[in-house]
Amino acid sequence: MTDLNSKTTIRILTTGGTIEKSYCESDGTLKNRASIIREGLISSLRLPYTHLELESVLNKDSLEMDDSDRDQICAAIARTAEKGDPIVILHGTDTMSVSADYCHAKMGTPKVPVVFTGAMKPMGFIDSDARQNFTEALLAARLMPPGFYIAFHNRVFPIPGARKNLQTGTFESI
Amino acid sequence: MTDLNSKTTIRILTTGGTIEKSYCESDGTLKNRASIIREGLISSLRLPYTHLELESVLNKDSLEMDDSDRDQICAAIARTAEKGDPIVILHGTDTMSVSADYCHAKMGTPKVPVVFTGAMKPMGFIDSDARQNFTEALLAARLMPPGFYIAFHNRVFPIPGARKNLQTGTFESI
Amino acid sequence: MTDLNSKTTIRILTTGGTIEKSYCESDGTLKNRASIIREGLISSLRLPYTHLELESVLNKDSLEMDDSDRDQICAAIARTAEKGDPIVILHGTDTMSVSADYCHAKMGTPKVPVVFTGAMKPMGFIDSDARQNFTEALLAARLMPPGFYIAFHNRVFPIPGARKNLQTGTFESI
Amino acid sequence: MTDLNSKTTIRILTTGGTIEKSYCESDGTLKNRASIIREGLISSLRLPYTHLELESVLNKDSLEMDDSDRDQICAAIARTAEKGDPIVILHGTDTMSVSADYCHAKMGTPKVPVVFTGAMKPMGFIDSDARQNFTEALLAARLMPPGFYIAFHNRVFPIPGARKNLQTGTFESI
Repeated sequence: MTDLNSKTTIRILTTGGTIEKSYCESDGTLKNRASIIREGLISSLRLPYTHLELESVLNKDSLEMDDSDRDQICAAIARTAEKGDPIVILHGTDTMSVSADYCHAKMGTPKVPVVFTGAMKPMGFIDSDARQNFTEALLAARLMPPGFYIAFHNRVFPIPGARKNLQTGTFESI
Repeated sequence: MTDLNSKTTIRILTTGGTIEKSYCESDGTLKNRASIIREGLISSLRLPYTHLELESVLNKDSLEMDDSDRDQICAAIARTAEKGDPIVILHGTDTMSVSADYCHAKMGTPKVPVVFTGAMKPMGFIDSDARQNFTEALLAARLMPPGFYIAFHNRVFPIPGARKNLQTGTFESI
Repeated sequence: MTDLNSKTTIRILTTGGTIEKSYCESDGTLKNRASIIREGLISSLRLPYTHLELESVLNKDSLEMDDSDRDQICAAIARTAEKGDPIVILHGTDTMSVSADYCHAKMGTPKVPVVFTGAMKPMGFIDSDARQNFTEALLAARLMPPGFYIAFHNRVFPIPGARKNLQTGTFESI
Repeated sequence: MTDLNSKTTIRILTTGGTIEKSYCESDGTLKNRASIIREGLISSLRLPYTHLELESVLNKDSLEMDDSDRDQICAAIARTAEKGDPIVILHGTDTMSVSADYCHAKMGTPKVPVVFTGAMKPMGFIDSDARQNFTEALLAARLMPPGFYIAFHNRVFPIPGARKNLQTGTFESI
């Protein structure tokens, strides 16, 4: 008999991006340093029936990613998907749809839902959209069928089919 | 030709509950006063492709609701569902599943997704779960097929099938 | 030789009041429970050269205080002042000036600065004035000569000489 | 007859620095742009008997300031002090004591209290010290006699006599 209230595992792969940037008080810069996801983002959410597993795949600004980085992301997705749990990928917004399209082109439909998300403003800011987008990505990871998606600003985009709109600072359908 | 990026309307019906409680500095109490949803909750979210319509149906603690209140909620749902847009209902947690079950028993499957949500801690608190639950309810309203649901703490429960767990302060499947 | 950068001790006496009220999720009430000062207030301030010692004297709404409670506060002040460090007293706003006047009438000028403060909105709220008032009281405790004071909303009132203005929700000179 | 509760004016001169840095979502950088003091800092404080006048003197990282910039700050202080109200100066921490010492050496004791402050972390961050330091500077501006000061992390340093400690990220007496 299935326990209706057993915990669902969601696997988080972090790749860097604005969402993970933290402020260094000694030199006054924002950088992708060690992953601050657990303290800055997860601890503020109530997830009584969700178990999160974190893995840091990359830690860079998405404008600096190339195909070799994206191959690493694909490999991490393929390896992680074998475990059968939904996946959320934290990624810089500038090339998020490029990476998502790349993974889709290379891998086809994955065995599990793979939801990319990120933020326009780093998670440490009072008015960051990190918590909203991460909340949405976690829920989309539970609700959507296997496939690649971007969850952002109350929308879930099937991949391919989304791109960043630089003027409005959000994602839109194409 | 459809505009892929036109705004989706989601209709919010407020009924009171902890999520809407605000602190009165002159008498030091927490009460369900006028709806503070727009300033306290919506203004902190980024919803570039979502249009929210608010309507206040009731404004009370859900422990004080009776069947006549629930008939009012049903009537508001029936009337609002005619417009064809998804519905989110803000409701106290103590009898949220009672109201959702009541509406389902009386109305069957509605024409649109109807997602109940609320919070364990009023939205004005630093560590309130109101923003998380509301974010989840808005996304569930976009993603789910017509039916009654409760969205809470990273889960979406089909109705009937959920109840509040007083010990753990969350909802669970039954 | 004196170390110019040794830590200054400030002794905090808590008596309850709005500033210390915390929300109970199981019954939905705001109450003066155990002192939540350290986690909710002190941990958010940077005090590299200040050492805080906390003592809970009372834990009640100041509207419920009587002279016997105020005698307890006086006794705690007298005992604590012997240690020679400045004192900050957290107190409900409704009778804060009554208690401060009472202590002054009974004790005259104390050996150290004794600064009463509190808040119009409990410290757990996003827009609470607790952190502002507490920050001001700590600084006034360092800067003022021995005497009784109320620090509130960017003012430091010598006692006697202040009262709460119920209409404006702040303190004023009399 | 004096109105005991008339508003006190405090004049704020802004020069830039970390405290005023804001995040630009389009290029992902932190810069000293237009002054964001009013919305980001002042609006969160309760100042019923304080009137703030803001003037932007400079808008730069304090590591980039030279003597010509400091002459501008001196000129602004001299001109502003004529009005007889206390002054608070927002300044980068890296050379705050250099500027304060420079003004003191050039101007001697000013006619009013002149309190420098700033922050280790920009005001938009959840865990910024901007609000604490600004709260302290406003109170010190009310309480101290004419002279130059730095208010920071619950201390008020007479100038000359303070310097930034890069290791601990705060100011200390010398």
